[in-house]
Amino acid sequence: MSERTWRIYLSGEIHSDWRERIETAVGEAGLPVEFSAPVTDHGASDDAGVGTLGDESEPFWRDHMGAGVNAIRTQTLIRDADVVVVRFGDKYRQWNAAFDAGYAAALGTPYVTLHDAEFDHALKEVDRAAQATARTAEQVVDVLRYVIRGELPGP
Amino acid sequence: MSERTWRIYLSGEIHSDWRERIETAVGEAGLPVEFSAPVTDHGASDDAGVGTLGDESEPFWRDHMGAGVNAIRTQTLIRDADVVVVRFGDKYRQWNAAFDAGYAAALGTPYVTLHDAEFDHALKEVDRAAQATARTAEQVVDVLRYVIRGELPGP
Amino acid sequence: MSERTWRIYLSGEIHSDWRERIETAVGEAGLPVEFSAPVTDHGASDDAGVGTLGDESEPFWRDHMGAGVNAIRTQTLIRDADVVVVRFGDKYRQWNAAFDAGYAAALGTPYVTLHDAEFDHALKEVDRAAQATARTAEQVVDVLRYVIRGELPGP
Amino acid sequence: MSERTWRIYLSGEIHSDWRERIETAVGEAGLPVEFSAPVTDHGASDDAGVGTLGDESEPFWRDHMGAGVNAIRTQTLIRDADVVVVRFGDKYRQWNAAFDAGYAAALGTPYVTLHDAEFDHALKEVDRAAQATARTAEQVVDVLRYVIRGELPGP
Amino acid sequence: MSERTWRIYLSGEIHSDWRERIETAVGEAGLPVEFSAPVTDHGASDDAGVGTLGDESEPFWRDHMGAGVNAIRTQTLIRDADVVVVRFGDKYRQWNAAFDAGYAAALGTPYVTLHDAEFDHALKEVDRAAQATARTAEQVVDVLRYVIRGELPGP
Amino acid sequence: MSERTWRIYLSGEIHSDWRERIETAVGEAGLPVEFSAPVTDHGASDDAGVGTLGDESEPFWRDHMGAGVNAIRTQTLIRDADVVVVRFGDKYRQWNAAFDAGYAAALGTPYVTLHDAEFDHALKEVDRAAQATARTAEQVVDVLRYVIRGELPGP
Amino acid sequence: MSERTWRIYLSGEIHSDWRERIETAVGEAGLPVEFSAPVTDHGASDDAGVGTLGDESEPFWRDHMGAGVNAIRTQTLIRDADVVVVRFGDKYRQWNAAFDAGYAAALGTPYVTLHDAEFDHALKEVDRAAQATARTAEQVVDVLRYVIRGELPGP
Amino acid sequence: MSERTWRIYLSGEIHSDWRERIETAVGEAGLPVEFSAPVTDHGASDDAGVGTLGDESEPFWRDHMGAGVNAIRTQTLIRDADVVVVRFGDKYRQWNAAFDAGYAAALGTPYVTLHDAEFDHALKEVDRAAQATARTAEQVVDVLRYVIRGELPGP
Repeated sequence: MSERTWRIYLSGEIHSDWRERIETAVGEAGLPVEFSAPVTDHGASDDAGVGTLGDESEPFWRDHMGAGVNAIRTQTLIRDADVVVVRFGDKYRQWNAAFDAGYAAALGTPYVTLHDAEFDHALKEVDRAAQATARTAEQVVDVLRYVIRGELPGP
Repeated sequence: MSERTWRIYLSGEIHSDWRERIETAVGEAGLPVEFSAPVTDHGASDDAGVGTLGDESEPFWRDHMGAGVNAIRTQTLIRDADVVVVRFGDKYRQWNAAFDAGYAAALGTPYVTLHDAEFDHALKEVDRAAQATARTAEQVVDVLRYVIRGELPGP
Repeated sequence: MSERTWRIYLSGEIHSDWRERIETAVGEAGLPVEFSAPVTDHGASDDAGVGTLGDESEPFWRDHMGAGVNAIRTQTLIRDADVVVVRFGDKYRQWNAAFDAGYAAALGTPYVTLHDAEFDHALKEVDRAAQATARTAEQVVDVLRYVIRGELPGP
Repeated sequence: MSERTWRIYLSGEIHSDWRERIETAVGEAGLPVEFSAPVTDHGASDDAGVGTLGDESEPFWRDHMGAGVNAIRTQTLIRDADVVVVRFGDKYRQWNAAFDAGYAAALGTPYVTLHDAEFDHALKEVDRAAQATARTAEQVVDVLRYVIRGELPGP
Repeated sequence: MSERTWRIYLSGEIHSDWRERIETAVGEAGLPVEFSAPVTDHGASDDAGVGTLGDESEPFWRDHMGAGVNAIRTQTLIRDADVVVVRFGDKYRQWNAAFDAGYAAALGTPYVTLHDAEFDHALKEVDRAAQATARTAEQVVDVLRYVIRGELPGP
Repeated sequence: MSERTWRIYLSGEIHSDWRERIETAVGEAGLPVEFSAPVTDHGASDDAGVGTLGDESEPFWRDHMGAGVNAIRTQTLIRDADVVVVRFGDKYRQWNAAFDAGYAAALGTPYVTLHDAEFDHALKEVDRAAQATARTAEQVVDVLRYVIRGELPGP
Repeated sequence: MSERTWRIYLSGEIHSDWRERIETAVGEAGLPVEFSAPVTDHGASDDAGVGTLGDESEPFWRDHMGAGVNAIRTQTLIRDADVVVVRFGDKYRQWNAAFDAGYAAALGTPYVTLHDAEFDHALKEVDRAAQATARTAEQVVDVLRYVIRGELPGP
Repeated sequence: MSERTWRIYLSGEIHSDWRERIETAVGEAGLPVEFSAPVTDHGASDDAGVGTLGDESEPFWRDHMGAGVNAIRTQTLIRDADVVVVRFGDKYRQWNAAFDAGYAAALGTPYVTLHDAEFDHALKEVDRAAQATARTAEQVVDVLRYVIRGELPGP
């Protein structure tokens, strides 16, 4: 059976190394995956509008311009993804991660949430619409390996 | 020109009276609106699963059951809505509100956000995909009056 | 808040009185529901093709004709439904019930399964894509009451 | 006329060698086909949740977790398929196969059923929404060869 | 169980009284049906463009204008219909009827064909995508009665 | 044959009385039509944002806010319409009218353009995707009467 | 500007060499096109069902089986096509060609009709929903060359 | 992270070198982009119908034929695009550019407008539905570089 390439979008937290851990482990496992993600350089992301379209002094519109430019990237990549992984970390409010989950849910794109148990109650709607809730990046890799190859981790 | 009835879904915060203020003002203005909303009784909402489908001791699954039952209501009403208003208050993480915004965005349903300026930066992606950002319930009513009747508030 | 009418399609088993029990209890509760269902007269359902379009001696085509006529009804009503309830009883293979569940899932229409625990393993895929799994008709009524009115059954 | 690659998803029974027979014959015929399928290792499939996401003692939730992980694979592959083949064998209830058929039907994806005549009456709804009903894996291969190349088997 | 109104579009032949026979019989049976149809006055239909938008001497563009105006009506009503009945009579080429059938098929709207057996081979693709093929207007009425009420004609 | 109500959205020019002429004539003809339109009070439309959501000194963002609020109305009504009429007058650039035409085209909603011959070349793409091009409000009324009743104007 | 490959489906008449003429000319022009088509061997097409799925003596069901197998090919290829060319020749009723045109129209896929002027009136609805009507295979090639390369034939 | 190819459609003005400037700069930056565009040879575009399908003396129909042939190209490429850039220059009415913007908006495809500030008020609806408004071709390139690579221009 020929192997298709899976497109996985990694949404959410940009302040820990969870994306790298998933990508490294998936690469080591040789899984046929193309990862995509939002721009994870926090400063660049915040300046996406004024850095490309010209200055704006009002913070609200500055954010508005930046969010528009970022959305060209994120919504295109989410629409294009086979699976979305949505990570909620322990800092910030991360409403954009929950927004992405709702966006994926309405498109019918399966997604996996990744967060600690302390957020379970607050994320119950987001988790319910997910196909899986993982606690660690390693579990996400295990899910992807199973989904793509049908292989479970050894005992 | 005959008047159509507008279906407005009021998503988000359940700990202040913003829904009542909007509904009262819209009623006083005589606007043809049918409001809908999630179940706003916090206790009932949390027990939506175990209160209907039988007990469950594990908190994660308890929430999972409840979120499923609530989703029957919320996703049906959002799909049915002409406009969604999404309120972010100052308590809790309110990821479900951001989830609803993403869901509406992917459906192409216009939505209005309602929140204080302190959340502007954190909500920039959610606000960007909205058609309007309001600060007060009264502004939401003004938007609805204009959208439905073309009338602006007097000076 | 004005009350919308909910359209509920009752799919699956036609050899017990589960539909009547749900409809009676929903009627007593005064819930604004319009129920729909497949034709539940087994003999009429089997003769739906030859009874309307003319005779056919070959059993396969006899069934084929009947299933086509029944599909005009069932697929229209499922597409039209807000919520589908799918009942699996203890007789027959009921592949059409599972077909309806898959059909609803792909449409994004929320559905509730209703079956005994003995079928849990065999129905795991069908239950996973459902928003709730109920054991009794009464639980389905409790779910509908909560979804429509936000009310949980008393203690 | 250049030859496109056809994506064929093989749904259903995992206890006989029907997939291998189709894949072998299609390979020998040199047809441009990429096959996909659910995970067919029964034990791995049952453990898809607990083997990747962590343990769970309650059988219902164990199945629920597993079905979620499996759905990431199956629903993605069905959405991606040009044609689905749905096999009903003589063991188990195989509700997931009928679910897949309903899912494909609602997506507008053509599918072929594969089963013995003894199930004809029970599968009449599933067969009616199919484009073809085959009795043997060889017939499925003949259908694929015709669909792709326009060639019928010799006399 | 409350009775919904079914919207039935009657496509095709405009030179016999098949529409009237169906409408009369459905009316006598008291079935809750709203019929719609193309404009069946042949002369008016041919003049739909030049009669409303101004003269045009070139026959091709005359037809083009008329077909555009007619399409506003027909495509709106087909999109709105629950079921389409497509009649092929023994005169003219009736390509518009086959066009409507293809249009309904792509929308996922069920349709019933109505024609004599002499056209069976020529209409095989159109019949295959239909849910039923009837020979007489009376059979169409029987199908509609069954679909709406679950009742078969007496012996 | 029962008469359905047609929803007609009147897009474009707000500086002449074309809407009133269509509505009056349609009313006199007793056609079952519900008209909708953008807010046609130019001043109110320009202030739709700052008049409801609070002041904004930068003209670009002032327009941006206003256009967002107006879009809640216009995009909802266009999505809801059976037919759109798009009027291009002789003043201003009217890019919003062409935008609405493109929006309707992508939705598959039929539309009629209304403009003088002097704009024919500049509007050729917009007219090509329309079902009809009218020169006068009276012609639009004739088209609607024909579409709804099948009646052509007398000689 | 990089060159994309265009997928063109050639629907309709199978009794003249129009496909070959288009394919040859397109090949000579070096246009990046992948053509697809129904099975054009009339005998094979008629036997598509019984030649793959087993015998059937009743002509109606024989055709039904064949049309189902052919539809797996044709509907997949039409859904996959960028442009459809629909040819109406001077023999047979060719309802399947008109069906394909309606199917493409509902999908929003642009199509070009190819037929003699004698059929203009009978094909007016089919031509109206087309983006172009050609009289000769050479004109179709000219349209494709222009669409792909922007080049018009020399004088 | 592997690099996907982005498909960018460049809509609008054909009388300045904005496309070439964007393509050159994107090429120099080595961004993985496939550009597409309408036919930008004004004369060829105007003759797209009569140059391929045969002569037509009436200007309206001449334009109509040409617009149909051009639409095969433009609507296919817009549907295929990840991002659309819509340029409004200082000549002509450019209703087709606004049409393309509306078309992209309804499809949910993100687009960027490119125009001088003098058109801001007239383009407010078109800009509001865009994800970004640029003033120069260089800004468009900066947006694309950020969207694709996450890199902002240096200070």
